[in-house]
Amino acid sequence: MKLKITIFTICLFTASFLKAQDSLMLRKIYDEELVNGQCYGNLHYLCKNIGARLSGSPNAQKAVEWGKKLMESYGFDHVFLQEVMVPHWVRGEKEKGFIIDGRNRIPVAICALGMSVATPKEGLTADVIELHSLKQLDSLGESAIKGKIVFFNRPFDERFIETLRAYGTAGDQRNLGPAAAAKFGAVGVIVRSLTGSLDNYPHTGATRVSPDGKNIPAAAISTKAANQLSELLKQKKSIKFYFKQNCQTLPDVLSYNVVGELKGTENPNKFITVGGHLDSWDLAEGAHDDGTGVMGAVEAVRILKALGYRPKNTIRAVFFMNEENGDKGGLKYAELAAQNKEEHIAAIESDLGGFTPRGFGFTGLSASQLNNLSGWKALFAPYGSDRLIAGGGGSDIGPLREKTQGIVLIGFSPDSQRYFDVHHTPNDVFENVNKRELELGAASMASLIYLIDQHGFN
Amino acid sequence: MKLKITIFTICLFTASFLKAQDSLMLRKIYDEELVNGQCYGNLHYLCKNIGARLSGSPNAQKAVEWGKKLMESYGFDHVFLQEVMVPHWVRGEKEKGFIIDGRNRIPVAICALGMSVATPKEGLTADVIELHSLKQLDSLGESAIKGKIVFFNRPFDERFIETLRAYGTAGDQRNLGPAAAAKFGAVGVIVRSLTGSLDNYPHTGATRVSPDGKNIPAAAISTKAANQLSELLKQKKSIKFYFKQNCQTLPDVLSYNVVGELKGTENPNKFITVGGHLDSWDLAEGAHDDGTGVMGAVEAVRILKALGYRPKNTIRAVFFMNEENGDKGGLKYAELAAQNKEEHIAAIESDLGGFTPRGFGFTGLSASQLNNLSGWKALFAPYGSDRLIAGGGGSDIGPLREKTQGIVLIGFSPDSQRYFDVHHTPNDVFENVNKRELELGAASMASLIYLIDQHGFN
Repeated sequence: MKLKITIFTICLFTASFLKAQDSLMLRKIYDEELVNGQCYGNLHYLCKNIGARLSGSPNAQKAVEWGKKLMESYGFDHVFLQEVMVPHWVRGEKEKGFIIDGRNRIPVAICALGMSVATPKEGLTADVIELHSLKQLDSLGESAIKGKIVFFNRPFDERFIETLRAYGTAGDQRNLGPAAAAKFGAVGVIVRSLTGSLDNYPHTGATRVSPDGKNIPAAAISTKAANQLSELLKQKKSIKFYFKQNCQTLPDVLSYNVVGELKGTENPNKFITVGGHLDSWDLAEGAHDDGTGVMGAVEAVRILKALGYRPKNTIRAVFFMNEENGDKGGLKYAELAAQNKEEHIAAIESDLGGFTPRGFGFTGLSASQLNNLSGWKALFAPYGSDRLIAGGGGSDIGPLREKTQGIVLIGFSPDSQRYFDVHHTPNDVFENVNKRELELGAASMASLIYLIDQHGFN
Repeated sequence: MKLKITIFTICLFTASFLKAQDSLMLRKIYDEELVNGQCYGNLHYLCKNIGARLSGSPNAQKAVEWGKKLMESYGFDHVFLQEVMVPHWVRGEKEKGFIIDGRNRIPVAICALGMSVATPKEGLTADVIELHSLKQLDSLGESAIKGKIVFFNRPFDERFIETLRAYGTAGDQRNLGPAAAAKFGAVGVIVRSLTGSLDNYPHTGATRVSPDGKNIPAAAISTKAANQLSELLKQKKSIKFYFKQNCQTLPDVLSYNVVGELKGTENPNKFITVGGHLDSWDLAEGAHDDGTGVMGAVEAVRILKALGYRPKNTIRAVFFMNEENGDKGGLKYAELAAQNKEEHIAAIESDLGGFTPRGFGFTGLSASQLNNLSGWKALFAPYGSDRLIAGGGGSDIGPLREKTQGIVLIGFSPDSQRYFDVHHTPNDVFENVNKRELELGAASMASLIYLIDQHGFN
């Protein structure tokens, strides 16, 4: 009995000693970042000296080269590129859109959806039919749709607390709507911008093209213009829509993921990955999407290096290429991981903006492992990043779960309220990023990497 | 034994029924706000149609009149004004400041601190001494200070996670520094703006004047200019500073708190107050400080009214006057509460901006009462506003605790990262407020009022 008590006491003592050690390390991580943080300055460079960097563009190549140099400048143990072929879509001239109300042509803010085809050179004019779901295509049938421009106008459901969920439930209109409408004989598609905010600029984003189907031109329209069009359609039967875009898809281009490692001292072939995507849409600087993600990821590794931390497992910062319109970088990373027989413990993706961190979502943990996170929650509580919940990941790390065994996917969860104000718009610029919010995110990722590296998930 | 089990079962059943009812009510509150919210539109009116509203100004009076009408338009049971005399300080002409480096006059961004006296008409020029604390005045003594301009330049400690704590620890320089330096013979004071951000505009704010002491002119200087001045002082001994301001304190003015009530059906003389301050600094629109506070407070009561909720206790939205440079409205509210023998259960103050809500801080709860909040934490968790912690309040509700018995003071705690970017600056404008962040705050306050009204704190 006495022995048991003693062992129990030793265990308790050890546990509390470890906890105190972890707590001290987290404090050091946050102090390093809040006092010496470099990610905000790096983001400034990426946004202002490189700027928009859609896959296949010269700017995307510049970003790759600069990103590699940045990692090298931090003295990571190994910095390398992974070759990956990516789509090369270009927007062409600025798009034009008009609501045609009799003789009245009302200009509205539109932009081509990524990967869309062009309209005829002279533009496209047709009657408009407003739909609120893809199911309505089935119920209305070809006779109602054929020859028309389908206007998908289901707004965000504002009742969701997390805006990402509203994006998720409205997203099929943009992702799948154009290809679906084409099957019913539509000649074009206009999609209400995927945002809850009422603004007057379009929010772009990719739409899926059918490789063997008929693809029709598809554009996003600003939410204010969408409301205007909807209002006019309610009042009058004779409303038409005109739009013109000359975007095109050029041959695929050789591009790269950028990878930087701190080598594991105990398990060099076991990996903890943290990453975001380096490519961005072409309309702005890709500050929140996903400049903050890549700059936060490399910063998380920089912090650990700056503190002299020698990880047990290999820690990798990854700048994925082509998340926006192809996911080719994420697929390639997973393919190479399998090919090289790498053992992946966890991958953290940051692709929801650089806002105040609230926590992380986990996919691949057992119930008891999830339960064990309560100790980490307590460690994160003083930093406000303690919402550790089931479910999470991201497009770039998703393929790792199919290609490698036992990996835990982790989505970095910042506050979501402002994301869709700027997402995929001309407003996604450096000025809309707050220095401390970004830094707290980088510190929270560094902290999580440290805890996983030290303790795993058991 | 059986009976005990049955009673226990009934209790459990009742508890879980009540919890489910509360949970449903919170959902209704958030839905009402996120779908039909009016506070963002109201804030737009306050910022753009009224604007800056320093105590005693014509705009402050306009805000009072409009605020009263707004509450009346919502059909509150009783809307009234509370008379209160407030200070009337005016800034006068735009201030001028120069670093004098030999023949070189470098213009810098400064502004008079609220309640400061003017410089002589021609301005004030003197040698500068840089200090980092008020204690240094004592250690250096009058011989070092006399005839000089004291430059308080202790920056925010960026290691604090909550920026309010950095503000708190740096704040004595602005609040107490000028009066303290005057005692040592200083002729003027320049204070580093109270912000962690490196920007080029001054952040104003009140400084305490000694009614019987010698008051010297005091101004805030932008953080960028403060760094520049500090750098020059390190390099050269001969740096002087010049500034000119012609602010003045006019006779006190009659002003008002604006109060709107939903009458308690069971306890009309028991009160739950929710409020912010209607006055703002003169440099901008007082959007976050504290337009969001007053518009959020009235919105919280509007939501409950819109849902047809009949409170047990009287619920009051209060727009306090004169928080920024006198706290006269808060003092008056408490004085009248005592005079009218009102029983105050709780008061919630929102004066930390309209950012995503994180929770509330409580002052006046016993340990067991604090422990009981865990049930509420669970209710707030889906809305991300579940950080219910000990300690909280605000300048306007503080006096209630001295004047009335048993009140619980509650500080609304939004995310703090961006607050001091705009606080007391020309940047505190409507455009820097996010609609959903503001709405979530109003809904969280309505939810807390509902829970207190239903259950008290036991």
